[in-house]
Amino acid sequence: MSLLVLGTVAFDSIETPFGKADRIIGGAGTYICWSASQFYNNIKLVSVIGDDFPQAELDALAARGVDMSGLEKRIGEKSFYWSGKYHMDMNSRDTLVTELNVLADFSPKLPEHYKNPEMLLLGNFAPAIQMQVLNQLNERPKLVAMDTMNFWMDIAMDDLKKVLTQVDVLIINDEEARQLSGQHSLVKAAKTIREMGPKYLVIKKGEHGALLFYGANVFFVPALPLEEVFDPTGAGDTFAGGFMGYLAKTGDYSLDGMKRALVYGSVAASYCVEAFGPNRLKELGPDDIKARTLEFLNLMEVTLEDIR
Amino acid sequence: MSLLVLGTVAFDSIETPFGKADRIIGGAGTYICWSASQFYNNIKLVSVIGDDFPQAELDALAARGVDMSGLEKRIGEKSFYWSGKYHMDMNSRDTLVTELNVLADFSPKLPEHYKNPEMLLLGNFAPAIQMQVLNQLNERPKLVAMDTMNFWMDIAMDDLKKVLTQVDVLIINDEEARQLSGQHSLVKAAKTIREMGPKYLVIKKGEHGALLFYGANVFFVPALPLEEVFDPTGAGDTFAGGFMGYLAKTGDYSLDGMKRALVYGSVAASYCVEAFGPNRLKELGPDDIKARTLEFLNLMEVTLEDIR
Repeated sequence: MSLLVLGTVAFDSIETPFGKADRIIGGAGTYICWSASQFYNNIKLVSVIGDDFPQAELDALAARGVDMSGLEKRIGEKSFYWSGKYHMDMNSRDTLVTELNVLADFSPKLPEHYKNPEMLLLGNFAPAIQMQVLNQLNERPKLVAMDTMNFWMDIAMDDLKKVLTQVDVLIINDEEARQLSGQHSLVKAAKTIREMGPKYLVIKKGEHGALLFYGANVFFVPALPLEEVFDPTGAGDTFAGGFMGYLAKTGDYSLDGMKRALVYGSVAASYCVEAFGPNRLKELGPDDIKARTLEFLNLMEVTLEDIR
Repeated sequence: MSLLVLGTVAFDSIETPFGKADRIIGGAGTYICWSASQFYNNIKLVSVIGDDFPQAELDALAARGVDMSGLEKRIGEKSFYWSGKYHMDMNSRDTLVTELNVLADFSPKLPEHYKNPEMLLLGNFAPAIQMQVLNQLNERPKLVAMDTMNFWMDIAMDDLKKVLTQVDVLIINDEEARQLSGQHSLVKAAKTIREMGPKYLVIKKGEHGALLFYGANVFFVPALPLEEVFDPTGAGDTFAGGFMGYLAKTGDYSLDGMKRALVYGSVAASYCVEAFGPNRLKELGPDDIKARTLEFLNLMEVTLEDIR
């Protein structure tokens, strides 16, 4: 079993109502790997950085079981850089700066030992890049999940729709689901989107939790109510990473297995927002995951035996 | 056991993106009684109407076990009238018209056989009126719940705070919780509000579900994802009515009992929004409640035995 991850490794500058952080470690691939490695340690990352990225950060991820041999390092170039500012409610943000840098002409090349993963998570990236990764695999993984964003729907919808036919699980937020489907009702949106390819659809609603649609089934996992949301950056990637990391650990892709994975994704995301960047995720161990999972059970559990 | 309900009985005109309904039956008391009577049939309503209110509507509620002897009927006067228009997302609305009519100088007078209820639900009303009901009781009910709204926080906060010291369960929405507490974080808001009196706090988040705070415990019940939300009017009152109706049926005010009641409140509310006014609630029987409760269990249930 191995989990192949495509995702950016980048620098972020973040401003929230509670503080500022300048040029900290970020990127979907970073959050996914920190989160998935809470559950599973045969992870292979494919991405690209410049020569400005701190080696200590890469070493820390490698120590968590993340194979970095598919991480291309371009000498004389700069890593991807994003800067954003959150509003008071933390549910909306403005992008201040996007510098593609090494991403501008990235074309992923998978090492040979990357080409037979049992699971694949295509983090948010240009759909054409996501397809390049799929096309280099020797055989189809048992489970393929992907994330995307409105930007790709605006400029590369045809490519996006092609990738969608290849994935089992699509993980997007409510706004993205509405744009992709053209439907306001998330139930209707889910129906339309699953006709595009994915059997499983996860719709993330930020502080309002996440929905899993599969067949005629709908499952909901709440977000943990927190005293403070310090920095939501990366929470969605952390959610996807925890979800796929837990599935990689168990190999159970049944509906019940997916439900459990959704809870663990939420557990990881609830830690992510407690500090700037992936800092909180770096501190976590199994006891932290267990303690918070018990909090989720208290939040969700109700006995209604009388109804059956 | 009996459940005393204070709540308006009124006419509403409603406009949504899906249609219009002119001068239909409405009011918090109406929704509460239709909902609570799905679970329990010793309900006593205290309210006021003009002579324009259709007798058939009152007869229909009486047939569900609602005692109307505390419903004052003023000859030559008009019933309370509200008109509102919903926006596309159905989470926000504008009030177009409010005609207080009989509410302008209402002073509730409880019949003798109303004065020993075991449970009391103070629907959204001027806090001074809510206090008048409390003051006429021979002894304190075993459980007192109340609803309120931003309007009363703006113009009668001192009265509202007095009532709060007398209640066990406060049921309000997220925006109201933020205004009442002055806190944006709902976890912090809950702490502040429970210091004002209520042991239990229910925060309704509309389509995003509801939270129950008690002691160090937090419980979350989702709203059922629906293809169409036809008319959200009265959903919050229906939720409160189902919650209290189920508690009246069981008499179990433990945390587990409250959690169950929260699910049944959500079940009732999920039906309410399927048609204009309380029309959908009028059609329901025990099989409908059971069927939808099973849908909620599918939505909420996850097995995580391995974690304990």
